[in-house]
Amino acid sequence: MRTSRLEAFSDGVLAIIITIMVLELKVPEGNTFADLRHATGKGLLSYVLSFVYVGIYWNNHHHMFQLARRVTGGVLWANLGLLFCLSLFPFTTAWMDESDYARFPVLLFGVNLLAAACVYNVLQWVVIGAHGPESPLRQAIGADLKGRVSPLLYLVGILCAQFVDPHGRLGVVIASGCYILVALIWIVPDRRIGRVAREVDSPD
Amino acid sequence: MRTSRLEAFSDGVLAIIITIMVLELKVPEGNTFADLRHATGKGLLSYVLSFVYVGIYWNNHHHMFQLARRVTGGVLWANLGLLFCLSLFPFTTAWMDESDYARFPVLLFGVNLLAAACVYNVLQWVVIGAHGPESPLRQAIGADLKGRVSPLLYLVGILCAQFVDPHGRLGVVIASGCYILVALIWIVPDRRIGRVAREVDSPD
Amino acid sequence: MRTSRLEAFSDGVLAIIITIMVLELKVPEGNTFADLRHATGKGLLSYVLSFVYVGIYWNNHHHMFQLARRVTGGVLWANLGLLFCLSLFPFTTAWMDESDYARFPVLLFGVNLLAAACVYNVLQWVVIGAHGPESPLRQAIGADLKGRVSPLLYLVGILCAQFVDPHGRLGVVIASGCYILVALIWIVPDRRIGRVAREVDSPD
Amino acid sequence: MRTSRLEAFSDGVLAIIITIMVLELKVPEGNTFADLRHATGKGLLSYVLSFVYVGIYWNNHHHMFQLARRVTGGVLWANLGLLFCLSLFPFTTAWMDESDYARFPVLLFGVNLLAAACVYNVLQWVVIGAHGPESPLRQAIGADLKGRVSPLLYLVGILCAQFVDPHGRLGVVIASGCYILVALIWIVPDRRIGRVAREVDSPD
Repeated sequence: MRTSRLEAFSDGVLAIIITIMVLELKVPEGNTFADLRHATGKGLLSYVLSFVYVGIYWNNHHHMFQLARRVTGGVLWANLGLLFCLSLFPFTTAWMDESDYARFPVLLFGVNLLAAACVYNVLQWVVIGAHGPESPLRQAIGADLKGRVSPLLYLVGILCAQFVDPHGRLGVVIASGCYILVALIWIVPDRRIGRVAREVDSPD
Repeated sequence: MRTSRLEAFSDGVLAIIITIMVLELKVPEGNTFADLRHATGKGLLSYVLSFVYVGIYWNNHHHMFQLARRVTGGVLWANLGLLFCLSLFPFTTAWMDESDYARFPVLLFGVNLLAAACVYNVLQWVVIGAHGPESPLRQAIGADLKGRVSPLLYLVGILCAQFVDPHGRLGVVIASGCYILVALIWIVPDRRIGRVAREVDSPD
Repeated sequence: MRTSRLEAFSDGVLAIIITIMVLELKVPEGNTFADLRHATGKGLLSYVLSFVYVGIYWNNHHHMFQLARRVTGGVLWANLGLLFCLSLFPFTTAWMDESDYARFPVLLFGVNLLAAACVYNVLQWVVIGAHGPESPLRQAIGADLKGRVSPLLYLVGILCAQFVDPHGRLGVVIASGCYILVALIWIVPDRRIGRVAREVDSPD
Repeated sequence: MRTSRLEAFSDGVLAIIITIMVLELKVPEGNTFADLRHATGKGLLSYVLSFVYVGIYWNNHHHMFQLARRVTGGVLWANLGLLFCLSLFPFTTAWMDESDYARFPVLLFGVNLLAAACVYNVLQWVVIGAHGPESPLRQAIGADLKGRVSPLLYLVGILCAQFVDPHGRLGVVIASGCYILVALIWIVPDRRIGRVAREVDSPD
């Protein structure tokens, strides 16, 4: 099975997820800058954060399938699982935003991030499994430090949102900080895959 | 006619259908787990079920058109008919969900599933007809047990929703069980097509 | 310039237009068949009609660009003009539907159809102009009877909606009949283009 | 890295942005031409303007990536930045429209246009940087008069909206005029890139 159609379908779903979230930005009722600040509140921040996360997943998905040559039934379903987790972003982002970053919605956003990260790792294993341990993709991933650190940081965020400073805002602030930190770690695209991709392509 | 553009258009429509349903998930009014349960109710279950169904149709569509080499006018219209049936999923899912799985909306969801299954079969016949009885696709489909059993199970679900236990919930529970059962049957991708596809591609 | 990206972008826009209209179907408030009839009213009819029209445009667009080899700046803008006209379908369909097929909304729907047909003809001329009078596309179009009859039928519909039976429903019924008739005429795909496409492709 | 998937993803996002704005057009409450004028107000004008702007960006994006052969991590993120700016169009257009072209929303629309223009220029630099100063793209851009004049015109519009005629409509009218003028300048596609593209392609 070719990878092109799986990529096209994923592109379509990710394009919709990344764009649909702008519909959450409510038009202000007044006509001034103060109205804008009041209406969007932290909404623009949430929108940027979710946009960046979907962008990161698209980038990594793009990198991974550049080295993939084969699609199996397992890859199709793991990919649909990833798209499912990402499709919940507009919902969890909207709740976090409308609740003004309350404890449980912030925790749930972390759970959504964690679920997406876990399913992405499953997808990676399944894709590697379809290509064998000697595949360029396996070498490109290597130790995959980022892929191991991210779930830990999400978990720290989730636990802080739940247990730190139950009557104040500190736990929520630390959790949000964790989510932003992971985004910053991933904004740098995966150089190793890029390098291996060049090596694989250049001999052709 | 090439199949690439028909596939791209179908991918676009399916990507939108599968993503648009998340907009039905209403943001809870409070900020706790109890509010989440109250707001989404069985909504998440309906969303998962419809997501899985669209995913199944995408997978099978993908498999079918991997073996298709020609597109005729009849294929274009049968494909549009399938997309039309699937485009009604967000509507029938939302009603089933908002009515809290009442009798008639559950029945209507089954009718929608049945209509999609019938049109998919028509599409399969038209595609095979365009390639001749000796085509790899014809051999790949073979006896097509799943394709024959699914409409029967949908029909059982529809009849149970209508006639079983008119004053209780049993009929609706059986109907929902039928719909979930068909989804589970199809989650295993069609190995026969995969196998024939490999045989067709490998001699090239 | 290659045609592939223009086709991909048009596919995306048409896929969204054709799918977004299902959001107009309001979920019924009760749980019975009568509630469904009351809630959707003529909504399903409007949805089917608009779905079929977008499907027809997609089919014809698909046929036309199968024979096109070159894209010029004029083609890009004529294509955007066509997409603009089609993007107004969800608006004009929704109004026609919510007004319960009142005189002016039915007339406006006809104006929208007429505008789309005119811009489609402009696009066809521009594409032919980019390929020269000896191009296969020019021959495939031939006399283009359908392309000439459709605007006339839309015009008849518009005039009937405006002037026939101002205090009754007859004008609106005739107009709707004209719109349905044109759809039926076009559902048969353009055999001439298909034939020429095969002739052009087969010598390769 | 190939450019095809970056183009496909951008096509998807732009297709959604350009189509989603039609949802802002509210269906009139009455059934007459006067109701239509009252309901859409300047809405259709805003819709056309934003549609044309997204169309312009798609055209220029299409031209640019026809000459691009390589995608780097920087190109991916600059492209996502451009898509982010454009994804805010439905929001800023809707506010400008609902506020009946009030001072600050008109100014904000200009800021959105300016931000998109700046990020587009950054994207252009990054793409040229990935291909070297001798690349066809570098020559195709040349002096890039339009790319330099547009931000200045946006800036003039923003300043007029803020400072000219604070108690009247003149500042807003001049600002809107500036935005329309830039759109008119860009509707003519970039002939230089088209010419170089032909020269690059023809020796193949």
